[in-house]
Amino acid sequence: MSTTNDLPLHPLDRATRLVRNPDGSLSGRTEPAYANMVGPFGGVTAAAMLNAALIHPDRLGDPVALTVNYAGALADGEFRIDAVPMRTNRSTQHWAMTATQGDEVTTTATAFFALRRETWASTETGIPQVPSAEAVPRLDSSAFAQWTKCYDMRFVKGFWPDASESEHDLDSVSTLWIRDDPPRPLDFVSLAAICDSFFPRVMIRRPRRVPAGTVSLTTYFHADAKHLAAQGDRPVLATARASRFGLGYHDQSAEIWSEGGELLATSHQVVYYKE
Amino acid sequence: MSTTNDLPLHPLDRATRLVRNPDGSLSGRTEPAYANMVGPFGGVTAAAMLNAALIHPDRLGDPVALTVNYAGALADGEFRIDAVPMRTNRSTQHWAMTATQGDEVTTTATAFFALRRETWASTETGIPQVPSAEAVPRLDSSAFAQWTKCYDMRFVKGFWPDASESEHDLDSVSTLWIRDDPPRPLDFVSLAAICDSFFPRVMIRRPRRVPAGTVSLTTYFHADAKHLAAQGDRPVLATARASRFGLGYHDQSAEIWSEGGELLATSHQVVYYKE
Repeated sequence: MSTTNDLPLHPLDRATRLVRNPDGSLSGRTEPAYANMVGPFGGVTAAAMLNAALIHPDRLGDPVALTVNYAGALADGEFRIDAVPMRTNRSTQHWAMTATQGDEVTTTATAFFALRRETWASTETGIPQVPSAEAVPRLDSSAFAQWTKCYDMRFVKGFWPDASESEHDLDSVSTLWIRDDPPRPLDFVSLAAICDSFFPRVMIRRPRRVPAGTVSLTTYFHADAKHLAAQGDRPVLATARASRFGLGYHDQSAEIWSEGGELLATSHQVVYYKE
Repeated sequence: MSTTNDLPLHPLDRATRLVRNPDGSLSGRTEPAYANMVGPFGGVTAAAMLNAALIHPDRLGDPVALTVNYAGALADGEFRIDAVPMRTNRSTQHWAMTATQGDEVTTTATAFFALRRETWASTETGIPQVPSAEAVPRLDSSAFAQWTKCYDMRFVKGFWPDASESEHDLDSVSTLWIRDDPPRPLDFVSLAAICDSFFPRVMIRRPRRVPAGTVSLTTYFHADAKHLAAQGDRPVLATARASRFGLGYHDQSAEIWSEGGELLATSHQVVYYKE
C-alpha cells in the first residue's frame, strides 16, 4: 500500500476496511464511492469477504480460491462478517465467511489459502492480442453506476451494444484494460473486486437492458502476493464471456492478465437475469 | 430412480445416501465401490454434499451453483454432514454444508438453488464434434482406481499420454463420453459426481505421474430436473482443459453436454499438484 497515516485511505481500502469486535467478528461499512443501482458493487463485497480472512491473525499463505454467494441485497451502512478457519493443514487453510445485517445473512463465502511454492508452470491459453492501454480511449462512465467511476476502463471489444445491433450478430465477449482510479497497487483485495467488474453478459449479448445480477462468484488466483505486488498500479487486461444462457441464469468465465502476459486470475460466476 | 424396494440401490445411491439424525444432522458412509487412492472419489463427496441440501425438507427449487472444498482426507467409514439453509428468498435459496469426521472438518460446501423459469436462452459455445459413444471403445479401467469402474468412459481425446510424448506436443484437453455403470438415470447427484470425474490435467499435459488432487470445485447447472430426467441413462459428452499451471496449483474448466447438444453443466476446479 502506498498510503501512510498522513494520507486519506484509497476508496477501495475504505470500502473493505474491517474493524475487529470484542467477540472476534468484524464490522465494515458500505462506501458511497462504490454504490451500485441497489447497495454496493458486488466486487467490493467479494473483496471485503476475502479481506476478512486476509487480516485474520491465524491466516496461512495466500488465497488460491474464493467463492462468494450473494444471498440478499446489502443495505447501505454497517455490516458484520464472521470469518472462521474451518481447517488448517500444514501448508493449506480453508475458510468460511458469513456477512450479516441484523439477523439476515446477506453474503456467504468460502476461501482456500495455501503457501505457494515454485513448481513446473505453463499457461495454455494466450493473452488476447490488443492495443496497449494507452492506445485505447477511456470509458466515459458518466451514464453508469457510481462504482464504475472507481475504475479506469478501456474497452477493446464488447462494450454495451446499441439498439441497432442484433443478438444474432453479437457475442458475449468483452475485453478491456482496467485499473483502480485513483491508481492503487494491485493486491488480492483489488484483484478480487476487478474479477466482478464486468457488466452482465446478457446485456452485452442482447442490445436491451434487463434486471440482472451476480448470484455466485468463484475466483482462482494464479499469482502469489509477490507477483501481484510486482504489477504496481498498472492496468490489467480483463476478458469475459458466457457459454450458456437459459432458465433465468447464465454463466460467465473471465481471465485477468498482466501487461506482461501473466495470467493472474481466472474467475467464474452465475448471473440471474429476467426475461 | 429406477430402483424399487425389491432391488438393491445403485452404488451411487449407496455412496450418497444420508440418514437424518435426531439433531437434524445427516450421517453417511463411504462406499467401497467409489474408493480412490486415498479415501473416496471426490465426485461422490461432492454429490453427497449436494444431496444433503436436495433431501432437506425446506429445499426450494433446483441447484444452480455448487462449490465444494476438499479440506482434508475423508477416511473410509462414517461421516456427518450439516446442511444449513443460510437464506431463503421468494424463489432462491442459499445453503452451507459442512462434512465432519469426529472433530475434524473434511469438506465444506455452498450451494445456490432457484426455481427455474423459461427465459430467453442461447448457447454460445459449441458441442465438440466427435463420433457417437457407440463408435468409441470403452476404457479398460483395470489399471485405474476402483471408482473408475463405476463409469463407462470412452475417450475421444486426451487420455493419459505415454512416456514417449513430450509436454510440448501435448495440451491438457480431454474429451470423453461418460455414463454411470451400471446405467442410472441422470440427475443432479450423478451430474455433480461426473463433473469431478476427469483425471488431473497436469498428468494429461505432462507424461508423468505426480501427486495431485482437487482442492475446490464449482459446478453451474444449466438444466433443471426435468431436462436431466429427459436424458435417461444415456452417456454425456464431457470435456475439460486447464488454462494455468503454476505455484503448485492449476485450474480446470469443464463442460458436460447431452447427446442432443444441450450444455447441461459447466464446472471449474483448482487442483493441487507436486513438482
